[in-house]
Amino acid sequence: MSCINVTIWNEFRHEKHDEGIKKIYPDGIHNAIKNYLDKVDGLNVRTATLDEPEHGLTDEVINSTDVMLWWGHMAHGEVRDDIVNKVWNRVQKGMGLIVLHSGHASKIFQKITGTRSSDLKWREDGDIERLWVIDHNHPITQGIGDYIELPSEEVYGETFEIPTPDELLFISWFEGGEVFRSGLTYRRGNGKVFYFRPGHESVPTYHNPKILRVIENAVKWAAPLGYPDYPTGYVRPLSPVGGKIIK
Amino acid sequence: MSCINVTIWNEFRHEKHDEGIKKIYPDGIHNAIKNYLDKVDGLNVRTATLDEPEHGLTDEVINSTDVMLWWGHMAHGEVRDDIVNKVWNRVQKGMGLIVLHSGHASKIFQKITGTRSSDLKWREDGDIERLWVIDHNHPITQGIGDYIELPSEEVYGETFEIPTPDELLFISWFEGGEVFRSGLTYRRGNGKVFYFRPGHESVPTYHNPKILRVIENAVKWAAPLGYPDYPTGYVRPLSPVGGKIIK
Amino acid sequence: MSCINVTIWNEFRHEKHDEGIKKIYPDGIHNAIKNYLDKVDGLNVRTATLDEPEHGLTDEVINSTDVMLWWGHMAHGEVRDDIVNKVWNRVQKGMGLIVLHSGHASKIFQKITGTRSSDLKWREDGDIERLWVIDHNHPITQGIGDYIELPSEEVYGETFEIPTPDELLFISWFEGGEVFRSGLTYRRGNGKVFYFRPGHESVPTYHNPKILRVIENAVKWAAPLGYPDYPTGYVRPLSPVGGKIIK
Amino acid sequence: MSCINVTIWNEFRHEKHDEGIKKIYPDGIHNAIKNYLDKVDGLNVRTATLDEPEHGLTDEVINSTDVMLWWGHMAHGEVRDDIVNKVWNRVQKGMGLIVLHSGHASKIFQKITGTRSSDLKWREDGDIERLWVIDHNHPITQGIGDYIELPSEEVYGETFEIPTPDELLFISWFEGGEVFRSGLTYRRGNGKVFYFRPGHESVPTYHNPKILRVIENAVKWAAPLGYPDYPTGYVRPLSPVGGKIIK
Repeated sequence: MSCINVTIWNEFRHEKHDEGIKKIYPDGIHNAIKNYLDKVDGLNVRTATLDEPEHGLTDEVINSTDVMLWWGHMAHGEVRDDIVNKVWNRVQKGMGLIVLHSGHASKIFQKITGTRSSDLKWREDGDIERLWVIDHNHPITQGIGDYIELPSEEVYGETFEIPTPDELLFISWFEGGEVFRSGLTYRRGNGKVFYFRPGHESVPTYHNPKILRVIENAVKWAAPLGYPDYPTGYVRPLSPVGGKIIK
Repeated sequence: MSCINVTIWNEFRHEKHDEGIKKIYPDGIHNAIKNYLDKVDGLNVRTATLDEPEHGLTDEVINSTDVMLWWGHMAHGEVRDDIVNKVWNRVQKGMGLIVLHSGHASKIFQKITGTRSSDLKWREDGDIERLWVIDHNHPITQGIGDYIELPSEEVYGETFEIPTPDELLFISWFEGGEVFRSGLTYRRGNGKVFYFRPGHESVPTYHNPKILRVIENAVKWAAPLGYPDYPTGYVRPLSPVGGKIIK
Repeated sequence: MSCINVTIWNEFRHEKHDEGIKKIYPDGIHNAIKNYLDKVDGLNVRTATLDEPEHGLTDEVINSTDVMLWWGHMAHGEVRDDIVNKVWNRVQKGMGLIVLHSGHASKIFQKITGTRSSDLKWREDGDIERLWVIDHNHPITQGIGDYIELPSEEVYGETFEIPTPDELLFISWFEGGEVFRSGLTYRRGNGKVFYFRPGHESVPTYHNPKILRVIENAVKWAAPLGYPDYPTGYVRPLSPVGGKIIK
Repeated sequence: MSCINVTIWNEFRHEKHDEGIKKIYPDGIHNAIKNYLDKVDGLNVRTATLDEPEHGLTDEVINSTDVMLWWGHMAHGEVRDDIVNKVWNRVQKGMGLIVLHSGHASKIFQKITGTRSSDLKWREDGDIERLWVIDHNHPITQGIGDYIELPSEEVYGETFEIPTPDELLFISWFEGGEVFRSGLTYRRGNGKVFYFRPGHESVPTYHNPKILRVIENAVKWAAPLGYPDYPTGYVRPLSPVGGKIIK
């Protein structure tokens, strides 16, 4: 079997400029996730970051990626529109896309959802987050049990301005009183999209084994079955109009 | 009761430059629809077209519109991105949007759906189109009966690259062998969106009483219940974290 | 305009046999709701209860009901199957159905959802419940604001074994750590169905103005647009097979 | 890897009593499908039919089945309710269910969908059927191309009284003018359900390679990931109500 080509894209700014965050993710959030995925059979994992040329997302990289992960936060506006368009086009063709945490406000997620998707409530008070599994027979929730508990996370609260997801896999409970739809799937063109809420830069969420397992599951789920090609545009009639169908 | 403010936007090029089309719609497709909607109680209807300043869609017009209709075809690329963004933002706040026929490939519909949405099969052979009603207890299909038959229409064929609609109201049968999901609803932010397939410029579809009835129904359905305002952004905890909830 | 005929069905056992509950609902939960709905224009409200002949649901009552409310808990098994079938058939034809609280485990709701729907977590500890509004431009959530807070309610917790709802309108947060999808819509045949979680018999939830407002909104939303009649069964071909379509 | 245990259930009446049908399916529809699936790696296939004791669906058979196929037509009413209940319960736990053709009116499908699902248009005139693929990146549609064409099939026409499917994979076009949603998925409890329209007893549809491929794909798709067990019923609070969450 051939491998799934995975590209983990990370803004990679917080981890360079904040000492506390650097301690948690010394090589960046992307490498914390890569270290885990490297041990998974069948995946071929590379990374890309904002400050590389073309954000690390050259045509060659995009066109050879089967599943892309996206973490961004403070610099959404710096991401080039033309590169967002290329990523979006690749999703239409079949590439999987996994959007993490504050990536909800990224250009690519807004272009995917057709909503502002940045509109929600938020606060940072070190709340416990509990992610309840809504669907126990979905590939993404395997191996998780009844819920994931994170001892301290940033809070997101509804109303989250998104289209009704195709599948709702997790709902989060926060200690201070909020709820949030925190695991969502969408189909766009031939591509599968998964949004997964937890993962604030100031807490070690991407070291949590259950969180990493969800990401592994999601990568395998989002991998395309192929890049299907079917006729679009002008077609000849299958049968003469008003007449007998020609076989 | 206050009126629903309706703006019918039309590209209005075919009707000016093609004699055959001019005969069918001497004042443009927008005015054919307006003439009908003007007789409906509770609607306040105006029009806007591509070649007016700001495409007729000034801030004042957009911000006072409750439901916008959109017909475009040959000049999608000429529509200014900044105006598309304003229309899109208004939808997020609650404005209804009705996209007609070849408007499936418009910038606004692509921005709403998050897909190319222009990818489909098509041909022009004067096929009979039958639009079968899939949901008989939906406001948009009232007064239509079992199906609508159009004696001659352009054909669109699946696969139509769109997200799974929230509601599928019509499926079209075409004489030459194609099918198409031809009446679809979406929610985006607080706005309701309806896509309705028929309406090629070369045939008198917008003079058909059932087609006009669907459009009337859709306008009433898409009208917002209000422009809801609810907190987003930074919030204080509803309860002290780790402590008793304060009432 | 003609009235919406509403029938509030209540098991009406707790209120007769438990002194504490009798104090909260001296005339039964059904009459607490009826007292409110009686003041709403355009509604014609009656009640029915388990211990009446045919549970108060004679053919005449069922066939003249536009929207039925259903509250049951301790005696689901006593409800006659033939009467459940009649209610279900009426829903298929277009009658609205609003299932309240522990009605999630009723025969009618299981027959509607096609799932056990009784499988969920629960406990009674007097938790605060907060019902967050997920959709602010839906008829059922009008006049509610950002959330409803109930000072003390029974807890239901996910995973709730139900089909993905057509619309998810409320998610509940509970003080002790659970979440629950607490406001859901379904379509079945031509009928609209709304499930609304709160309403334990031991707390005065049905005296809360926001809860009553949701119920009022839901009644209006669930009212059928009509009882559509369209051909089913054997049909003649619309066009001779293999030949030209006859107009 | 362990095998997927497949049980093909067939009413098996037409094939015994009608000479024309016997010629097409001398060993019954179930064995035509079994012959194909027997050659697929990883499947362990057996059959069961109406006139066997307990319809061939003993507790042992049901409880060791991962995916069940269901073909029935003239004798839906003879299927025992208690056995239907057992099959339905197994679906809730995770068993996949594939309902074929006239199985749309079976007790099990009605119990799954919560609708009459028998209400649709139909006629038998030897129409060409074309099943258009709506989703090209779904496991069930792999290897099919743009559409399946059957030279002669029974016609089903909308409106098909079913809940909105979770996924719409095929739409059928019929020569005489009808359309039909002919490939649908549902989730019920932990089980996956697929309805697939073609397969009238009088035509050799289950000898068509593409039809058999769809069935093979569907069996693999519907196979459960496991039979998940998670707490339901009475639970202790995760945290003392009104107090600090205990870790």
